[in-house]
Amino acid sequence: MTRRHESRTQVGIVGAGPAGLVLAALLARAGIDSVVLEARSRSYIEARVRAGVLEAPTVDLLREAGVAGRLDREGMGHTGISLRFAEAPGGPAEDHRIDFADLVGRGITVYGQQEVVKDLLADRIDDAGLPVEFEVSDVDLHDVTTDAPSITYTAADGTAHRLRCDVVAGCDGFHGVARTVAAGAGGELTTAERVYPFGWLGVLAKAAPTTDELVYAHHDNGFALYSMRSPEVTRLYLQVPPDADAGDWSQDRIWDELQTRLACDGFTLNEGEFLEKPSVTGMRSMVASPMRRGRLFLAGDAAHIVPPTGAKGMNLAIADVRVLADAVERYYRDGDESGFDAYSATCLRRVWRAEHFSWFMTSMLHRFDPATEAGDAFGVGLQRSQLRYTATSRAAATSLAENYVGLPHGAV
Amino acid sequence: MTRRHESRTQVGIVGAGPAGLVLAALLARAGIDSVVLEARSRSYIEARVRAGVLEAPTVDLLREAGVAGRLDREGMGHTGISLRFAEAPGGPAEDHRIDFADLVGRGITVYGQQEVVKDLLADRIDDAGLPVEFEVSDVDLHDVTTDAPSITYTAADGTAHRLRCDVVAGCDGFHGVARTVAAGAGGELTTAERVYPFGWLGVLAKAAPTTDELVYAHHDNGFALYSMRSPEVTRLYLQVPPDADAGDWSQDRIWDELQTRLACDGFTLNEGEFLEKPSVTGMRSMVASPMRRGRLFLAGDAAHIVPPTGAKGMNLAIADVRVLADAVERYYRDGDESGFDAYSATCLRRVWRAEHFSWFMTSMLHRFDPATEAGDAFGVGLQRSQLRYTATSRAAATSLAENYVGLPHGAV
Repeated sequence: MTRRHESRTQVGIVGAGPAGLVLAALLARAGIDSVVLEARSRSYIEARVRAGVLEAPTVDLLREAGVAGRLDREGMGHTGISLRFAEAPGGPAEDHRIDFADLVGRGITVYGQQEVVKDLLADRIDDAGLPVEFEVSDVDLHDVTTDAPSITYTAADGTAHRLRCDVVAGCDGFHGVARTVAAGAGGELTTAERVYPFGWLGVLAKAAPTTDELVYAHHDNGFALYSMRSPEVTRLYLQVPPDADAGDWSQDRIWDELQTRLACDGFTLNEGEFLEKPSVTGMRSMVASPMRRGRLFLAGDAAHIVPPTGAKGMNLAIADVRVLADAVERYYRDGDESGFDAYSATCLRRVWRAEHFSWFMTSMLHRFDPATEAGDAFGVGLQRSQLRYTATSRAAATSLAENYVGLPHGAV
Repeated sequence: MTRRHESRTQVGIVGAGPAGLVLAALLARAGIDSVVLEARSRSYIEARVRAGVLEAPTVDLLREAGVAGRLDREGMGHTGISLRFAEAPGGPAEDHRIDFADLVGRGITVYGQQEVVKDLLADRIDDAGLPVEFEVSDVDLHDVTTDAPSITYTAADGTAHRLRCDVVAGCDGFHGVARTVAAGAGGELTTAERVYPFGWLGVLAKAAPTTDELVYAHHDNGFALYSMRSPEVTRLYLQVPPDADAGDWSQDRIWDELQTRLACDGFTLNEGEFLEKPSVTGMRSMVASPMRRGRLFLAGDAAHIVPPTGAKGMNLAIADVRVLADAVERYYRDGDESGFDAYSATCLRRVWRAEHFSWFMTSMLHRFDPATEAGDAFGVGLQRSQLRYTATSRAAATSLAENYVGLPHGAV
């Protein structure tokens, strides 16, 4: 049997995405030790393009954690989005702006998830010299229902390790081991799921954005989203069938379809070379409950998946670990485990709010397959009415705005 | 061939429900002649229990039409409703009041549809001596795409009649002839439909209401609605399967189920004898478009059906004929047919708003069949989050309130 290197920390964190790294940052500021384990390399996760919209409470938290210097310089503040749709079937599309600043007094910040990850890694590794183990494999969790859990793994150099800790944070995403362990024999984890009958084809293009804000377009051909990652880079999405093969979508076909779905008087869509291979992502929702098993706490995609339409995935992950960091602090400060006990219910309220908002945006904007919920004439009629109402009622627009900008942490 | 009695009016109105009678009242006040034809007897339609919630704009219009004297004396003004639900699965239900007065400065009035009908008939027949032909049969519409349409029918005494007119108002409900004619050869009428996978079992009981306002209850067994028609009469509804046989529901079973679904700390449900035989109504949505064919204009249930959850059916019918009365007035005053041309699109905006709101209320409150949209754990999670959000966000509560109380006529 391989000899295992033994080590110990207070909080073992599996996964160096936004959830794991923000948790590590918050704990470090509270004087609590942690070790972060990550299956991929640093360069891989620093380049991986994911979400790009930060809620106002997320930005606040990153500032409090002291990791928002570059975000504050380079992040693009947006004070609204546009809903683009034709009021009458077959009529011309028009933009209806949802003015976040006017409606709720705050906005969002466009800043790529990989930039958040870069900043957090630089803060932890380069500035503070704290541990992140990259390229680990064979991660497993042990004794999570006791006060002395541990994590076994194989390090990048092939050596076997056991990390003993008081608390394990499962921040290892949808395909990670943490939820599997929480659901294992004797566990009570259940999942609620919904699969949407379409996917998103995502394109990252070297093309200057021609509007300052995101455009959500409802079109007879399907949904399209116009967004940006920098003054030189446009991020675009097309609704496609869930089993669509990205290989069937040539650059020409993609630009043609984007031009069609985003067409609007006075709007120009700049084209440019693709910066990565277009790919298709299925759209689904998943909520695992409870988000705790003993001393194992699930956070982020390990516990819940949202469709990207509401831009909530990264924000939810960060909201989760704020709750967890508070609970861990209270535990070490006062020996008080009430934060552990409340963790799942507290997080799930915000998770379900985000699931509902993401479903609301998804249902309003996509063309559904004729066989399903909104694929019929009635469903499209509901969508048009909902879009028009959201664009014309202050109450409805405020409801969209407060969810999009992010309800205050602790207020949901 | 039978000899037909010929007569003439300006507007021939088929159907003496709220749509037909309010139209007749508005036209009479503008000095425009009309004849109302109704398949049932006066006593039948004066006793027929239907909807019972009047929007604020509906009450305003009935006042303008001079038929709100008794409504203002006897109608029960409500300044809110309660959403009753358990925040946590299996937890105790609590009431969350939506305070219309605070949120939108107006309220609703509970006053039975048959009372509105009684007041309109008394105004038209007893006070003004204007014509309503009851118990007509064999109604058919002719030449509606010309300037000289006519209506043929058999009167109560068996005589055959032809009523020539300039305009035909099809206010004869879902099963009436008007929509059939609009959809007939050469017509462009299309319908958008949705059938919900449940029905409502309705009960009218001689029992004093124990709360002043309506209660919408979300329960694991299904939706229940607590409402009232007078200080002595309670109106109650239970969600049941769409094919449920009311004969399978004994008084005891109905009260047991109502007590279960409406259970809430501090709430007492008074029981009492049933004033009519309980019946099951299927829940569906339907929108016919366009609502016009030539000189035939569809209004109310002839053009659209809403599920009763939003209490919109009678209100929409009355909103339709306000638009129609304005168009007819403009035609006779100025020879201007632009109101005719705009009628369908104008009405359909409000119709779709009401369809969407009714769908919103229906989807939030009912248990869906496991095989459909919200029957899974995910669907129930969405419902709980939507209920909680509606009860706690001022924007969301205002959105419900402004739709329930009724957006101003002309503003949708």
